[in-house]
Amino acid sequence: MGMIDKVAKPQDVLAAALSDEMAAVSRLIRERMASEHAPRIPEVTAHLVEAGGKRLRPMLTLAAARICGYEGPYHVHLAATVEFIHTATLLHDDVVDESARRRGRPTANLLWDNKSSVLVGDYLFSRSFQLMVETGSLRVLDILANASATIAEGEVLQLTAAQDLGTGEAVYLQVVRGKTAALFSAATEVGGVIAGAPEAVTRALFEYGDCLGIAFQIADDLLDYGGSSAAIGKNTGDDFRERKVTLPVIKAVAKASTEERAFWVRVIEKGQQADGDLAHAMALMERHGAMEAARDAARGWAAKARQALMAVPDHPLRQVLSDLADYVVSRID
Amino acid sequence: MGMIDKVAKPQDVLAAALSDEMAAVSRLIRERMASEHAPRIPEVTAHLVEAGGKRLRPMLTLAAARICGYEGPYHVHLAATVEFIHTATLLHDDVVDESARRRGRPTANLLWDNKSSVLVGDYLFSRSFQLMVETGSLRVLDILANASATIAEGEVLQLTAAQDLGTGEAVYLQVVRGKTAALFSAATEVGGVIAGAPEAVTRALFEYGDCLGIAFQIADDLLDYGGSSAAIGKNTGDDFRERKVTLPVIKAVAKASTEERAFWVRVIEKGQQADGDLAHAMALMERHGAMEAARDAARGWAAKARQALMAVPDHPLRQVLSDLADYVVSRID
Repeated sequence: MGMIDKVAKPQDVLAAALSDEMAAVSRLIRERMASEHAPRIPEVTAHLVEAGGKRLRPMLTLAAARICGYEGPYHVHLAATVEFIHTATLLHDDVVDESARRRGRPTANLLWDNKSSVLVGDYLFSRSFQLMVETGSLRVLDILANASATIAEGEVLQLTAAQDLGTGEAVYLQVVRGKTAALFSAATEVGGVIAGAPEAVTRALFEYGDCLGIAFQIADDLLDYGGSSAAIGKNTGDDFRERKVTLPVIKAVAKASTEERAFWVRVIEKGQQADGDLAHAMALMERHGAMEAARDAARGWAAKARQALMAVPDHPLRQVLSDLADYVVSRID
Repeated sequence: MGMIDKVAKPQDVLAAALSDEMAAVSRLIRERMASEHAPRIPEVTAHLVEAGGKRLRPMLTLAAARICGYEGPYHVHLAATVEFIHTATLLHDDVVDESARRRGRPTANLLWDNKSSVLVGDYLFSRSFQLMVETGSLRVLDILANASATIAEGEVLQLTAAQDLGTGEAVYLQVVRGKTAALFSAATEVGGVIAGAPEAVTRALFEYGDCLGIAFQIADDLLDYGGSSAAIGKNTGDDFRERKVTLPVIKAVAKASTEERAFWVRVIEKGQQADGDLAHAMALMERHGAMEAARDAARGWAAKARQALMAVPDHPLRQVLSDLADYVVSRID
């Protein structure tokens, strides 16, 4: 590899390697998000789809299928399916979180209304369902049905776990699987399944996606508190204000003194937050090594993701997936 | 049939004939609405499920399967699937309509919050998806995927068609198919498909469900304006206040004088409603025969539903389905 490849982000390497197939995925997405009867649907979806996003999930499906030697057309359907499910959950998430911005633009719930976001999300979910039925694979349908249930269950769990300092690492992991890892692991697994890969390979692809998703989400949760001690991101403190009990909070609360515990009860459980509370929370996390412990956890999941790839056929894209696991945690170095 | 059977409502006759299988459906629903991890889920679903409802849709699936001679176990899965989809759409509808009451109880969005209704609806939809995958029938999955898309599209269409006096009968029919007929027709069709019925029979079962659903919804829309000129129901005027453009309105607007049109523009498009406007709207509908024309339309669809049953195998339950088509429009006599 030349110098350019060395510095390119793994997702950009993936995008370049899969550009033809991703173009086919984009065409299919545009075709299927249309609605003959209800013009509101393409308006809302175009707003979200045109804003872009990294399209990491469909690339994972395409990469897994290609690594397993697939030559049929249905990995494109599955990649579009996965992106539709992702987009549907974003629409519903923004209603639930009362978000105002997504991908640098005002959210659909703000531009139109919550009603449109709920119903267009339902529409995209049903369209994803039609796409996966077209593959004719019951095994694929089973995987995506189970992933959908895990996603929905994790979202409800996040709702009830928020504001509850009793939330432990096991519940946090369940939430993370629901909000991120379940779709990552389904995306990689169905790529192997549609290629007819052996059980050991599809299991390894599931494992890779699961671990990658968990590493990705823990890193995201760290970035919400500045990530590395160096950089303060523009979204710093969103989770704190929404009183979400993420891994850095769980780890800091586990080591809290009586006085510190009272602070956490006030800001997270009672939601009485004042200026300076976020800075104080971050100072407590540093004092107890909560940030570093969460960083270690994310790196551990990334290592497990790379490890899982050992059972997957050797292929240039396998190395890119391995690099991707490193990359998602490099954001918190 | 004795006197009791003569006066019994067709849905009660269905419930009695299918009581064992409906008990199995109820058990499956209770089992699958549980969530190991998120206790909020069974709380919300139990609230809605225990409130009852007529469970007409699952009975249609069971009846269709039995008429076609099915002896396997999967019609119970499909009946539960259909009820889950119905319950999921009710949860989302109540958020969209900002409803406060459903089945004589406060709605979930009022008791918990909109967030819970959105996410638990998603959960039920994903559970319905798992149930249908268990049947192992790609044809069933295709039918239910298409029904889901029609439902979601119809809901969005209803949102944008509301407050728009340009809504014609074709768009109204599309909305009605989405909100009611698509799930009725999928319910009856999958009952035939799981039984391995021939194409002509499954098509007739689809047709029956479609026409029954449309007749049912037009009757509901009539009842919202008092239905028969005699009785004023307790929900009279809900659609008027929500500015929905239903069939009686469409038919009255089509015959409106200039002055009357200005009235409709004010109350439906501009939403400026005052005391006496509902009564005036109802008077205009009577004056132009809009109620009678809508009643004729509903009766026409019910007749088409009965007609479709001619292609379905002779069976005691076939007569009950025919009676049911009569019954749904008897409410507006």
